Amino acid sequence: MEGFGVHTSMWTMKWDRAGAEKAVAAAVSYKMDFIEIALLDAPNVDAAHTRALLEKNNLRAVCSLGLPEVAWPSRDPDAAIAHLIGAIDKAADMGTEALSGVTYGGIGERTGLPPTEAELDNVARALGAAAKHAKSRGILFGIEPVNRYETHLINTGWQGVQMIEKVGSDNIFLHLDTYHMNIEEKGAGNGILDAREHLRYIHLSESDRGTPGAGTCDWDEIYATLAAIGFKGGLAMESFLNMPPEIAFGLSVWRPVARDEAEVMGNGLPFLRNKARQYRLI
Amino acid sequence: MEGFGVHTSMWTMKWDRAGAEKAVAAAVSYKMDFIEIALLDAPNVDAAHTRALLEKNNLRAVCSLGLPEVAWPSRDPDAAIAHLIGAIDKAADMGTEALSGVTYGGIGERTGLPPTEAELDNVARALGAAAKHAKSRGILFGIEPVNRYETHLINTGWQGVQMIEKVGSDNIFLHLDTYHMNIEEKGAGNGILDAREHLRYIHLSESDRGTPGAGTCDWDEIYATLAAIGFKGGLAMESFLNMPPEIAFGLSVWRPVARDEAEVMGNGLPFLRNKARQYRLI
Amino acid sequence: MEGFGVHTSMWTMKWDRAGAEKAVAAAVSYKMDFIEIALLDAPNVDAAHTRALLEKNNLRAVCSLGLPEVAWPSRDPDAAIAHLIGAIDKAADMGTEALSGVTYGGIGERTGLPPTEAELDNVARALGAAAKHAKSRGILFGIEPVNRYETHLINTGWQGVQMIEKVGSDNIFLHLDTYHMNIEEKGAGNGILDAREHLRYIHLSESDRGTPGAGTCDWDEIYATLAAIGFKGGLAMESFLNMPPEIAFGLSVWRPVARDEAEVMGNGLPFLRNKARQYRLI
Amino acid sequence: MEGFGVHTSMWTMKWDRAGAEKAVAAAVSYKMDFIEIALLDAPNVDAAHTRALLEKNNLRAVCSLGLPEVAWPSRDPDAAIAHLIGAIDKAADMGTEALSGVTYGGIGERTGLPPTEAELDNVARALGAAAKHAKSRGILFGIEPVNRYETHLINTGWQGVQMIEKVGSDNIFLHLDTYHMNIEEKGAGNGILDAREHLRYIHLSESDRGTPGAGTCDWDEIYATLAAIGFKGGLAMESFLNMPPEIAFGLSVWRPVARDEAEVMGNGLPFLRNKARQYRLI
Repeated sequence: MEGFGVHTSMWTMKWDRAGAEKAVAAAVSYKMDFIEIALLDAPNVDAAHTRALLEKNNLRAVCSLGLPEVAWPSRDPDAAIAHLIGAIDKAADMGTEALSGVTYGGIGERTGLPPTEAELDNVARALGAAAKHAKSRGILFGIEPVNRYETHLINTGWQGVQMIEKVGSDNIFLHLDTYHMNIEEKGAGNGILDAREHLRYIHLSESDRGTPGAGTCDWDEIYATLAAIGFKGGLAMESFLNMPPEIAFGLSVWRPVARDEAEVMGNGLPFLRNKARQYRLI
Repeated sequence: MEGFGVHTSMWTMKWDRAGAEKAVAAAVSYKMDFIEIALLDAPNVDAAHTRALLEKNNLRAVCSLGLPEVAWPSRDPDAAIAHLIGAIDKAADMGTEALSGVTYGGIGERTGLPPTEAELDNVARALGAAAKHAKSRGILFGIEPVNRYETHLINTGWQGVQMIEKVGSDNIFLHLDTYHMNIEEKGAGNGILDAREHLRYIHLSESDRGTPGAGTCDWDEIYATLAAIGFKGGLAMESFLNMPPEIAFGLSVWRPVARDEAEVMGNGLPFLRNKARQYRLI
Repeated sequence: MEGFGVHTSMWTMKWDRAGAEKAVAAAVSYKMDFIEIALLDAPNVDAAHTRALLEKNNLRAVCSLGLPEVAWPSRDPDAAIAHLIGAIDKAADMGTEALSGVTYGGIGERTGLPPTEAELDNVARALGAAAKHAKSRGILFGIEPVNRYETHLINTGWQGVQMIEKVGSDNIFLHLDTYHMNIEEKGAGNGILDAREHLRYIHLSESDRGTPGAGTCDWDEIYATLAAIGFKGGLAMESFLNMPPEIAFGLSVWRPVARDEAEVMGNGLPFLRNKARQYRLI
Repeated sequence: MEGFGVHTSMWTMKWDRAGAEKAVAAAVSYKMDFIEIALLDAPNVDAAHTRALLEKNNLRAVCSLGLPEVAWPSRDPDAAIAHLIGAIDKAADMGTEALSGVTYGGIGERTGLPPTEAELDNVARALGAAAKHAKSRGILFGIEPVNRYETHLINTGWQGVQMIEKVGSDNIFLHLDTYHMNIEEKGAGNGILDAREHLRYIHLSESDRGTPGAGTCDWDEIYATLAAIGFKGGLAMESFLNMPPEIAFGLSVWRPVARDEAEVMGNGLPFLRNKARQYRLI
């Protein structure tokens, strides 16, 4: 989890052999340091195939997910633990470095109310067990605050830190996302400041999840603050072009937010990389 | 609908006599040119009382709403028309200048899919009838694009213009909101550019709906673009502190996004007014 | 003067045959709509050669200059008129569309005091005569406000408009520069707003005159405001890499503000063009 | 040198008894933690009077200056040392904590060429002697990079660090200024990043030296980066309203860049303080 990478949703949301091969080849062609793989259907992923593919291409990887409703830890921490352990095992078997994302709930889970203590206790218990298992398998475990519409549990960097301290594990890191920060933080820099002690990974996603550089995110402030806190973690570009129906509702992605891959990779990627170099982050 | 105003949610979300008196007195004390009143329960509003209150205080007003599920025009345009006509009559009886907001659907209405032609046809029919009725009552009728999580129907200024042109009425205006634009537009300025021919009203709301000036909105770009298109409509500050449970879910407001009224009115209001003066908008 | 162009200082500051050929070939390779030629030594420019070169390459052009101390209009309007007429004749003979720049004084001319009425009267007289001559030759004549250190005469868009109205000619346009606006205007958008009635040309120059996109200029605000006023003039990228000693003092350019041409044209040019397309300016 | 202060040029540029009393009273009324005093005529300052005034008002102070041409260290380091020692003694006698500013040259000193090794050697020798003397008197000694038009010697944070390392003293700090950074740095955040090891003091000055918040400086990026590097030094607001002719030329201040003190202190000061609180810097 260092250097500059990309979420493979740019090329596939189905991590079967064909999807994996397409995404890895594409990532290599763009000289990525790592990829992020959405682990939406862990049991059906061919771990050995992915591991071999990554090794052959000398590419590092991170897995991410959101939880299905039957395994929301706020309601059923044991079901969540079982689901997370399965995903962690798969992520480790695939040879990836971490499992992160909305590991504390569903994408779109919200009650219309602030999180209750009981919900947060349940979440903390599930995260603690998952982090411990991840440690036993030699991978890191992360949590990604997302905006108010995608969860009522953890929206900001500060709330993420509160949860990590509540869990008390040394194997949980914070994973920020500029798209969510643009909605939730009092300045993107503030989210990074709040998260700094635990921040290891960041999604570089534009304000509309489209082409980086063509939205309202203040990339200078984001990068300057990352550089100033001495950030050494992974910078992962994320733009949404290919969303399967089962997650499109939670993410509310149906409008095409970028023209095509050529626009994102031809304009957005150089923009993000040039700015990252300007701030000596890569 | 001109000058600088404020959404009365700062002081009340219940427009009974006590709420109205509190909000009007507060708005007058801050030297507002107009107020925006949430018409969540039109039948129970004492129109004569509000009209007298506004006249006595020489204060102009605009009403806004989102539609209850039984009156979503995408599904039941006739129910929507009946609901809108009732609200328009009340808004006119109250002596206000317009009815606007999410007049084309529910706050939180979304299917997980792009809007269908049938949905858009239904919406257009309802809006056409409402706009015609509003004209007969001497008030304007507006539509406010909101972000992807609050509707799947109209998210951007461009989509709003498409709908207005589809309806073909001369009595519908576009009502933008900087909070939603910060998520949906490719630069807030772009939303204003797309909307320019029909733009008559704008919510000045920070990126987290908290204290203006303390978020990620680019107010210089917003105001410069408004000034450059010759915007003469209403500038309405909107911060959410008091949300009743029945709309908190759709809006996803449960976290306190500003400390208190003193912070919003003491820091945010001068910030917005100073910048509006800098660009000679007020 | 429309479309996207570049100042030829990127390739040469000496407009002899070799310099002209190098610059034109480079501009064509980058698919520029026009070039800006620094007319520092008009008498020695081979106008027929440039005209043929431009025609052959189907490239449009604009000339610009600052005045030598012997021809500062604030002190000696007649000398200024003679100098400007010579430059206008050359610019017309070269087949270019306009003469612009610091046509009202020297780059670095300042008294430490505000401009006096006598100075401004002298300047207006010289500009009026020059604009009239330019009209007789079928080219436009422009004035470019520059920052406080480069002149004490015209620093802002508003001051430029005052001067144009004082002159009263219909053949003078305003030429802004984002580098100078970044120092002098209360928001770059404000400079564009002030200048709007007369604005026909703008230098797109970063805050340190280096690589566009890697400084403090707010390009979204700049482009959004240009689009909002309906700007149809020339967008001219300007970065300083090659400055001859005779103008380096006035411009205070001695530190390398960009690494090399590859950085400016490889990173800065795509940045400016992508953003200009985002705002539908090109 | 910590907390939030103000340059006394807001109220006086003449540090006689009347000027000192006016400025101290004004600073106290605005609840400043410290003031910055321009030491333009050190020999004629009544040090005991200032010391008593500061003690009585429990106000801390910093002195700053630029050097007169006869004492430019690039040309005459011995004259510079004599001048700086006099100023340091006065600053110490006044009970202030530091002497800073353009202590390495004149405001407006430039040759039109890059600094030569000989010039930089001379400057380093003078600064070393001054820093040593300052240490013996128990005060700190600073250098403030200024823009290309005000010096050719040190324009950026990185150049400032180079000079401090060249001098090799442990008593020299870097003093940045947002106005100059807005011209010279590749993003204000970058200047802060480069300067971080030695940064102890920063001028908060708007892009036109007028009312803070009404220009092009990106205050969120500036404050976020300061917070992220753990900045604990002095934040000094600086706006120029009262400039005596003898320094107006070098500073190129003749145009009124803010309406009046009421605008700067009524709009600009709350803006800067609110934002500093947002980033928990005060």
